Amino acid sequence: MFLNLLLIFVPIAFFLEFTNANGTLIFAASALAILPLAGWMGRATEELAARAGSTIGGLLNATFGNATELIIAFFALQAGKIEVVKASIIGSILGNLLLVMGLAVFLGGLKFRTQRFNIQSAGLVTSMLTLSVIALLVPTVFDLAARQTEAAGLVERLDVNLSDATAVVLILLYVANIVFSLVTHKDVLSTADEEGEEHGPNWSVLRAVGVLLGATILVGFMSEFLVGSLEVATRSFGLSEFFVGLILIPIIGNAAEHAAAVLFALRNKMDLAMTIALGSTVQVALLVAPLLVLASLLIGSPMSLVVSPIEMVAVFAAVIIANSVVRDGETNWLEGALLLGVYVLIGSAVFFYPA
Amino acid sequence: MFLNLLLIFVPIAFFLEFTNANGTLIFAASALAILPLAGWMGRATEELAARAGSTIGGLLNATFGNATELIIAFFALQAGKIEVVKASIIGSILGNLLLVMGLAVFLGGLKFRTQRFNIQSAGLVTSMLTLSVIALLVPTVFDLAARQTEAAGLVERLDVNLSDATAVVLILLYVANIVFSLVTHKDVLSTADEEGEEHGPNWSVLRAVGVLLGATILVGFMSEFLVGSLEVATRSFGLSEFFVGLILIPIIGNAAEHAAAVLFALRNKMDLAMTIALGSTVQVALLVAPLLVLASLLIGSPMSLVVSPIEMVAVFAAVIIANSVVRDGETNWLEGALLLGVYVLIGSAVFFYPA
Amino acid sequence: MFLNLLLIFVPIAFFLEFTNANGTLIFAASALAILPLAGWMGRATEELAARAGSTIGGLLNATFGNATELIIAFFALQAGKIEVVKASIIGSILGNLLLVMGLAVFLGGLKFRTQRFNIQSAGLVTSMLTLSVIALLVPTVFDLAARQTEAAGLVERLDVNLSDATAVVLILLYVANIVFSLVTHKDVLSTADEEGEEHGPNWSVLRAVGVLLGATILVGFMSEFLVGSLEVATRSFGLSEFFVGLILIPIIGNAAEHAAAVLFALRNKMDLAMTIALGSTVQVALLVAPLLVLASLLIGSPMSLVVSPIEMVAVFAAVIIANSVVRDGETNWLEGALLLGVYVLIGSAVFFYPA
Repeated sequence: MFLNLLLIFVPIAFFLEFTNANGTLIFAASALAILPLAGWMGRATEELAARAGSTIGGLLNATFGNATELIIAFFALQAGKIEVVKASIIGSILGNLLLVMGLAVFLGGLKFRTQRFNIQSAGLVTSMLTLSVIALLVPTVFDLAARQTEAAGLVERLDVNLSDATAVVLILLYVANIVFSLVTHKDVLSTADEEGEEHGPNWSVLRAVGVLLGATILVGFMSEFLVGSLEVATRSFGLSEFFVGLILIPIIGNAAEHAAAVLFALRNKMDLAMTIALGSTVQVALLVAPLLVLASLLIGSPMSLVVSPIEMVAVFAAVIIANSVVRDGETNWLEGALLLGVYVLIGSAVFFYPA
Repeated sequence: MFLNLLLIFVPIAFFLEFTNANGTLIFAASALAILPLAGWMGRATEELAARAGSTIGGLLNATFGNATELIIAFFALQAGKIEVVKASIIGSILGNLLLVMGLAVFLGGLKFRTQRFNIQSAGLVTSMLTLSVIALLVPTVFDLAARQTEAAGLVERLDVNLSDATAVVLILLYVANIVFSLVTHKDVLSTADEEGEEHGPNWSVLRAVGVLLGATILVGFMSEFLVGSLEVATRSFGLSEFFVGLILIPIIGNAAEHAAAVLFALRNKMDLAMTIALGSTVQVALLVAPLLVLASLLIGSPMSLVVSPIEMVAVFAAVIIANSVVRDGETNWLEGALLLGVYVLIGSAVFFYPA
Repeated sequence: MFLNLLLIFVPIAFFLEFTNANGTLIFAASALAILPLAGWMGRATEELAARAGSTIGGLLNATFGNATELIIAFFALQAGKIEVVKASIIGSILGNLLLVMGLAVFLGGLKFRTQRFNIQSAGLVTSMLTLSVIALLVPTVFDLAARQTEAAGLVERLDVNLSDATAVVLILLYVANIVFSLVTHKDVLSTADEEGEEHGPNWSVLRAVGVLLGATILVGFMSEFLVGSLEVATRSFGLSEFFVGLILIPIIGNAAEHAAAVLFALRNKMDLAMTIALGSTVQVALLVAPLLVLASLLIGSPMSLVVSPIEMVAVFAAVIIANSVVRDGETNWLEGALLLGVYVLIGSAVFFYPA
């Protein structure tokens, strides 16, 4: 795969970092280096999942599926860039629902006139998506309401209390989701598992563990370099941190999902493409976001789940759009074009947004 | 039914009230006393409905179904607790869509792997629900908009005019709904009627009228005691009136619906469980809310339908969630858990909300 | 057709205008004169479309379908009435989704118990509708967000930049929509074309071109008179310009669609009625709105796409309602009554709204 050529940027990023090179170069090199590493992490996880049998395997997939994002966000959190982390959570949801789904639907639709997928299982994932995203937004809604009536000090405490409570509820729902899909209703989403096994490479378990470990460690280093050079890079490109968090980091962190979803769409396996786009979003809301809240408590600079009104509305709109596209069990290139159109609009809005 | 044991709290509440006992005790006793009385009112109404033939019977059911809520709200209105009444209208919608539906779907889902219901009639009720809730929120939306541009005096008049106009439109739509379901499209929702007749107790009409009258009068007394002790009780429990109105009163007022919906779900009659949760919500929006507006005009302290932005968003989210759950005609325990999760989050948000 | 009797108001409007008659009379006469002219424009366009073959014909229909609205809005733009133009864009969406659809569903439902339509093609148009309306609202959302954080000067520039970018994206999506429905997926919406040909009058092409040209020119004059007398008329009727833009102009401009949709509903051709109501809305969002933005740049008084929060919420609610009604592929009179109820509420809210 030509993506592996980008692995050359791993040593380059190390070299630039340790020679104290220009921040913009470090940023670009580490961003490019993450792309193939995320791919290797994904393939190693799938390999282990295939070997481990479907229950443990599903658990592995569901937990390490968004590992890259989580690692980048963790280093950003440690560097005190709380707003960037929050924007990257929102951006990841928007990216999955509009960009990943949009690209898959559009490119798949150019090749196949109408693509169909199992409306039953997609409908279930969409319900989950709607509910989990609404749960994620509860702190923002109450913050907005309280801000119109009360002193700022009380609002801060409300935000933290409510975000912690929300994080706990979200993780409980994540566990419920795991129990549902791996224990009580194993067969509903079984298509995805079978496909995974069929296409999985034939590695030894030991090699897979080694690759997973190595790639994870390297992603960690790259993420640290990326976050460290963020400020210099954004300044030299004239980008706001908001743009980087909402658009750039999610694209880097989700590149593996993008590639997989588009490949499945081009093979007319829309069930899998939709499962990736929708399932990954559910994971961000139910696992990535609450884990980052809890991690922020350990680090000592508590992050709330309160985002800006604009991010809330954008996410809400994306969920309504995804519902609307999934509803009829069919897609075509025009729907993909509309999804991409909305993503481009939101991207350009964030770009023009006064820093 | 073990609920009848709670009837002991009827005389206890009377005793406490007339001995000027501690307000918290009066509050607790009258709240507990309402639960079995609401059950008796519901059963007597159903009995009369079954005897009266399906048209008049349906009318009875549709009108007295939310009588308990209406009575509690009426006494709260008379005591000048307008904000509590408004919160209880919103809380009743949230309670029906998230808590009643959530409990029924979750508990039913633990017993049955997948529960199915007639998507056609549920879809119709959901359309009605969406439309009626949106109509109910029109005054709030315009209040918010006007508040950003105009002097407060004009906004007050807008609120009252618009709320009265909305109340009239809502009651007209309620009448239209009655005509639809009892005259022109009688058969669409007929399953519910048949079931009701089948399971209805074999009382004489006279006894049913007596029970209905007696229970209604007692609910009236209990509601007056409840409202009278509200302030003392909330202070001693450390609860805000917002929490009591939004969470506590709707749970007390809707207890009968909760029990019925869960029982039907456990018997795998999801059609009936959904009809109760959705239909009761429609009734709150189209009948309870406008009747309270009109009653407030008679009492002389006009209540508008303008609620806080947070209540508006919560109701909106609940409607989207209900749409999302109903859409595929199937439920499972995970969907129930998500509904309950969102309800718990909203509840804890209101709890943490600065008083 | 009795509508043609209103043609008498064409000369009356000319006479009143050139004798400098009372503005209110000019306003009423030109408004009434536009109704039959719009009908003639519609029929001539359909005739040409039928003659031109389905591809060019579809293009004609899709482009001139909202010509009346576009002409009125253009003259209002030239007169500097930017707020009226923006309100008329929003009002046109509300009118199509609530009033046109509501009248068709209600009146059709009085005649036929349950009316059915092809859920597949309606679902596709509804997806398009949802996506295009959300795209249209992106500038408003970002304006609201920016307004809470930044200096007014920066917001103005953001509004203009973002509105221009949005207009370009919308027109690209419009072209994509044309390509989709006339080239790659011609057959999906074919029912409408066949019907059109079948019922089309048997004119010669030349006569149709003549009628189209003549009616367009007359509509232009009438629109100029209408806009010129707007201020006097609104003052004498005690109406706000907001009411005129949001309610009155869209009713005048969409009268032809109203009549056509109701006629199709009364003939139980709900597919066509829904296509008119939904398709016309898509056209407003993807073609009328961006063309007016671009025209405003040429005229020299740039119009942004930023509307008031209330308009945004109303449009959003209308889209959710339309989704809810279309979803099950069936309609009845009660759904129509609810659509009309919401429209009446919004209308009365705008009427009571402090000017």
